[in-house]
Amino acid sequence: MSYTLAISPLLQPILGDETAASLFSAEADLEAMLRFEVALAEVQARFGLVTAEAAKQIADAAQGLSRNSADYAEAIARDAMVAPGMVAALKKAAGPSLEASIHLGSTSQDVIDTSLMLRTKQVISGIINRSKLIENLLGDLEKRFGTLPLMARTRMQKALPIAVSNRLTLWRAGNAAARAELASLSFPLQFGGPVGTLEAFGPKGSVLKREIALALGLDVLDYCWHTERSPILSIGNACAGATTALGKIGIDVALMAQNEFSEIKLQGGGTSSAMHHKQNPVKAEVLVTLARFNAAQLSALHAAGIHEQERSGTAWTLEWMVLPQMIVAAAASARLAEELLRSIDGFGP
Amino acid sequence: MSYTLAISPLLQPILGDETAASLFSAEADLEAMLRFEVALAEVQARFGLVTAEAAKQIADAAQGLSRNSADYAEAIARDAMVAPGMVAALKKAAGPSLEASIHLGSTSQDVIDTSLMLRTKQVISGIINRSKLIENLLGDLEKRFGTLPLMARTRMQKALPIAVSNRLTLWRAGNAAARAELASLSFPLQFGGPVGTLEAFGPKGSVLKREIALALGLDVLDYCWHTERSPILSIGNACAGATTALGKIGIDVALMAQNEFSEIKLQGGGTSSAMHHKQNPVKAEVLVTLARFNAAQLSALHAAGIHEQERSGTAWTLEWMVLPQMIVAAAASARLAEELLRSIDGFGP
Amino acid sequence: MSYTLAISPLLQPILGDETAASLFSAEADLEAMLRFEVALAEVQARFGLVTAEAAKQIADAAQGLSRNSADYAEAIARDAMVAPGMVAALKKAAGPSLEASIHLGSTSQDVIDTSLMLRTKQVISGIINRSKLIENLLGDLEKRFGTLPLMARTRMQKALPIAVSNRLTLWRAGNAAARAELASLSFPLQFGGPVGTLEAFGPKGSVLKREIALALGLDVLDYCWHTERSPILSIGNACAGATTALGKIGIDVALMAQNEFSEIKLQGGGTSSAMHHKQNPVKAEVLVTLARFNAAQLSALHAAGIHEQERSGTAWTLEWMVLPQMIVAAAASARLAEELLRSIDGFGP
Amino acid sequence: MSYTLAISPLLQPILGDETAASLFSAEADLEAMLRFEVALAEVQARFGLVTAEAAKQIADAAQGLSRNSADYAEAIARDAMVAPGMVAALKKAAGPSLEASIHLGSTSQDVIDTSLMLRTKQVISGIINRSKLIENLLGDLEKRFGTLPLMARTRMQKALPIAVSNRLTLWRAGNAAARAELASLSFPLQFGGPVGTLEAFGPKGSVLKREIALALGLDVLDYCWHTERSPILSIGNACAGATTALGKIGIDVALMAQNEFSEIKLQGGGTSSAMHHKQNPVKAEVLVTLARFNAAQLSALHAAGIHEQERSGTAWTLEWMVLPQMIVAAAASARLAEELLRSIDGFGP
Repeated sequence: MSYTLAISPLLQPILGDETAASLFSAEADLEAMLRFEVALAEVQARFGLVTAEAAKQIADAAQGLSRNSADYAEAIARDAMVAPGMVAALKKAAGPSLEASIHLGSTSQDVIDTSLMLRTKQVISGIINRSKLIENLLGDLEKRFGTLPLMARTRMQKALPIAVSNRLTLWRAGNAAARAELASLSFPLQFGGPVGTLEAFGPKGSVLKREIALALGLDVLDYCWHTERSPILSIGNACAGATTALGKIGIDVALMAQNEFSEIKLQGGGTSSAMHHKQNPVKAEVLVTLARFNAAQLSALHAAGIHEQERSGTAWTLEWMVLPQMIVAAAASARLAEELLRSIDGFGP
Repeated sequence: MSYTLAISPLLQPILGDETAASLFSAEADLEAMLRFEVALAEVQARFGLVTAEAAKQIADAAQGLSRNSADYAEAIARDAMVAPGMVAALKKAAGPSLEASIHLGSTSQDVIDTSLMLRTKQVISGIINRSKLIENLLGDLEKRFGTLPLMARTRMQKALPIAVSNRLTLWRAGNAAARAELASLSFPLQFGGPVGTLEAFGPKGSVLKREIALALGLDVLDYCWHTERSPILSIGNACAGATTALGKIGIDVALMAQNEFSEIKLQGGGTSSAMHHKQNPVKAEVLVTLARFNAAQLSALHAAGIHEQERSGTAWTLEWMVLPQMIVAAAASARLAEELLRSIDGFGP
Repeated sequence: MSYTLAISPLLQPILGDETAASLFSAEADLEAMLRFEVALAEVQARFGLVTAEAAKQIADAAQGLSRNSADYAEAIARDAMVAPGMVAALKKAAGPSLEASIHLGSTSQDVIDTSLMLRTKQVISGIINRSKLIENLLGDLEKRFGTLPLMARTRMQKALPIAVSNRLTLWRAGNAAARAELASLSFPLQFGGPVGTLEAFGPKGSVLKREIALALGLDVLDYCWHTERSPILSIGNACAGATTALGKIGIDVALMAQNEFSEIKLQGGGTSSAMHHKQNPVKAEVLVTLARFNAAQLSALHAAGIHEQERSGTAWTLEWMVLPQMIVAAAASARLAEELLRSIDGFGP
Repeated sequence: MSYTLAISPLLQPILGDETAASLFSAEADLEAMLRFEVALAEVQARFGLVTAEAAKQIADAAQGLSRNSADYAEAIARDAMVAPGMVAALKKAAGPSLEASIHLGSTSQDVIDTSLMLRTKQVISGIINRSKLIENLLGDLEKRFGTLPLMARTRMQKALPIAVSNRLTLWRAGNAAARAELASLSFPLQFGGPVGTLEAFGPKGSVLKREIALALGLDVLDYCWHTERSPILSIGNACAGATTALGKIGIDVALMAQNEFSEIKLQGGGTSSAMHHKQNPVKAEVLVTLARFNAAQLSALHAAGIHEQERSGTAWTLEWMVLPQMIVAAAASARLAEELLRSIDGFGP
């Protein structure tokens, strides 16, 4: 399968993030979907909806199932999503006697949204950690260089003298605000059944939901959010907030590194194929790029915010195209910001 | 002055909101800017930075100052903002002896950002109130019609029978989530002086900031947010969240009102110039339009999120073009949603 | 009527354009709609579909009809557009005997889309003229200063020495490419009747269309473009292309005007309320702002590109919110670019 | 290398296009870059700038060079692009005596932009061919079903009866307009040298450019478009136009396929993991998704339209993130539209 709607691998070493991207691979997605199916059966076994033995066998079948996207390609092309094909494969692997115990009372959207939340929670947690590193690095820079003089510039013109610490304060404030937004996110389990009503379970529905969420380490909403996508929009908002906060550092560094300004000293820097004297502040530039990228993606994500009736194929698919890219961009931005800050050798000429 | 970058007044009765728009008029903006200048002087008088008499005379001069944008047009064209011209007019009106006591230690961005926050807080408060009305209307509809049958539809195809209350639950959840986001917003005073350091006031700066914020009913951040625009981005995010939540109601109503479906009964509806039998669900449609509008504007607002150095003319101006429109769209959406819900006469044929 | 979804009048002297904006006023819109209705009747009179006397009386009634949006506000709020109310008012003014001769075989979308095209054609023509002025101004600058040395900068770092003319060449190329795109636009008459088939006219439909277009100075498409919006998208693309081409000049000037660079000498410049030594290159900045504004609006316009079935209320209304703003932004950008180029006094320190 | 900022491979069978994507692989990009370097040397040999033997050896070295992105990852991470690393590898492979003959007078942007144009031209050509197939399929549908009755719907309400051919006419018009826009694109060679002036070649520069373009089958602009990105914007505009035109078909089919409407008969359709009676019109939905995706990406592309000074790292990198995705989305849309139209078995119940 060489299908892709992706950015060239030639850009990944600069624009990507290995950890984040591995969580948005086909393997990780299938793995997380199967975690949902297994947790579903295990919790249902506790409530006597399936037998304990069935739950065990489902877990075994899940373990052996292919995580190779090529094995599901035909089903994906037919259904425009992997879940029906994956559930069918799981049923086939587990055998006819277990068919009725697999995916019981659930629906594709439960599987897919939950897989997204499981993996997103993990990536965001990594971005938050990197944001704390950035905070520490900024604190170090302030200790080492904070009292040095800097010319404040407003509307790109000299304003009045300030200290390096004044500018660093704003970088820290932006990073802290972005981290607070990331830390406020919730990652709810999706569990609503075919039309969002958990109608297979009657009054047991909500306790089942709570227990599955507990098993998977996810949050719980007291309604089924199949078509109420504010959790998705909040994640996108926070990712865009993160790339913007670090993009502010990027644009400032790129401007400070202008030859006539000499307001910052950077180690390393990009080379040129034609001009060997050049040392380009490429990481600073790319921080701005990633911010502009996420700013635009956010409109696509919000355009996908309206899910008609009980399930929107159109809007849901658009989320899939956009949100992972935004999250990876936020992770890449945090990685690059850390690298850029580590490369600062001083302020002033 | 007939300059405008506006939508035709011919659309305002459907796409606008009178209350919200009046707060984004030139008069209201100038009024709020002058409130800042007066509060600044009054608080500074308490701290002995200006005399009490000066503060009083500044208030008097502010009261008499023109709120007519035409009187500032030349200065705006020169400075790309009204604040310098307005401050100069205030100084001229107050007379030479008060010049040094006006706008003391402040800067244009303090005036403009604070005016925006004063007015935005008021509009958002109105939207929140309307959202509560919408909640009540949805509760009423649920009481009256909740047990009626409705066909759930997923990917635009018949799925399984549900009740009207199931769909209403999602409309309520979306509206509640959007209201919670609006209610979580903070509206900070802007007060940083020319380069964001309040350098005119030394250690007194932060207490002055707190007192001015108290006088104006605004929040306080412990840093100057001239270039840290997360408060602005959060407002935009929340407005887009609000129009999306109500857009979901709009698309569902428009689909339910399709002739063959007859899932909803609406009073009124738009007429056609050519087909007199038609009754178009125009308010439902426009709810979707406003959601798509705000989704796109959000990318412009986030594109304006990076403010370089100590003040960005480019990014700041872009905020001015976008945020007020988003807020008014959110207010219009809430107004239309209320009207639409009031017009529902029943569910089913 | 104080309804508005507009940008503050306080920004119009810098962000607006008087000529362009006047063509997007309610008065100009109603005027152009009535031009369509009158031309429709006059051409229909030539084909014996209405009497010559009727056509004359319709023209008289149109002349006397109110162009004040407030007189149509109630109808607009009901129909989400002005056309049905305006047609009803015209029929009332003309009297019952003429009712059947007014708006004969036409529909609201014919009136509204045609009015948009009539006015857009005029504004775009003005932008093209200004683009030629810009070309001349750039030619003058090249003659006066083209041989002066300039440091080429790539990735914001010193590259190799070039001449001022080398940079001016790129400014000219961008402006020329943008003008070519504007000049290639077509402005088709909209005329399809209620469902786009001109079914009231049988085989006479296409010749009627051609004659009305001729009367109004508009282009003709051989199908009804009610739901085929490529003419609208092309106008938006060209406006965004124009603001981007001039935004390139803006960013370059803003960077050249940095104090340490002293690569350009500008007359005038914006003042600061707090720092009297400052002379801000505000027009250069605003050129960048307008480009970023139109870039974002373009996604809204393309989001409005899909018109379902035979007429989309949702998508059509979104066009109305976005396209006029893009056109006015392009006009403002051309005005500011001209002013900025006229203010260049030299290159180098 | 598992870095990626990509969409899950799980979506590729539905959202991707194999042919298009293979042209945006690392291998194809490196291949095209090396084609440029080889053509550059061969043309320069004709003009006596390098020896014929050197040109031959460069071609040999290029043939043997790695097309594996992993071999360039370190250089990419340093330079934020592959060209400097690839040129260095080519020089190393060719040996010290050829170093001065490789990449002579050229720059990274020449290599990268030209590679993009070579591959884009090929993908767009494929999309145009598919658009012709779509035209033929629509013609066939019109012949078979055109005279069947269909209810016209405006603002989602029944309007007046039309024929199936009336709606098909609009689908054809949209597809034809989009194809005309694609066919009008030009794909210029990029060749400007380090700062866009071809200063290494004096008066020979423009003839060299013409000859290299001829060798590569590309167009020629009479200026260096390093920072004049209208060719890039035009490609994006056309791709968005194409997905919009086909998205119109998608939304109409999805609405026609609603159970109560039964206006269209489709073979196949997506299955559900929970509701076995369902047959979802997933290809119709995804056509809408791809249109909304490209509409949003277009704002990112236009946001990347301003390239400051003589080369913009920030804006250029943003292009790389966005344009290939837009092109692949257009190719996928054409593939899906063809499949969807082939699956139409009839109109009416």
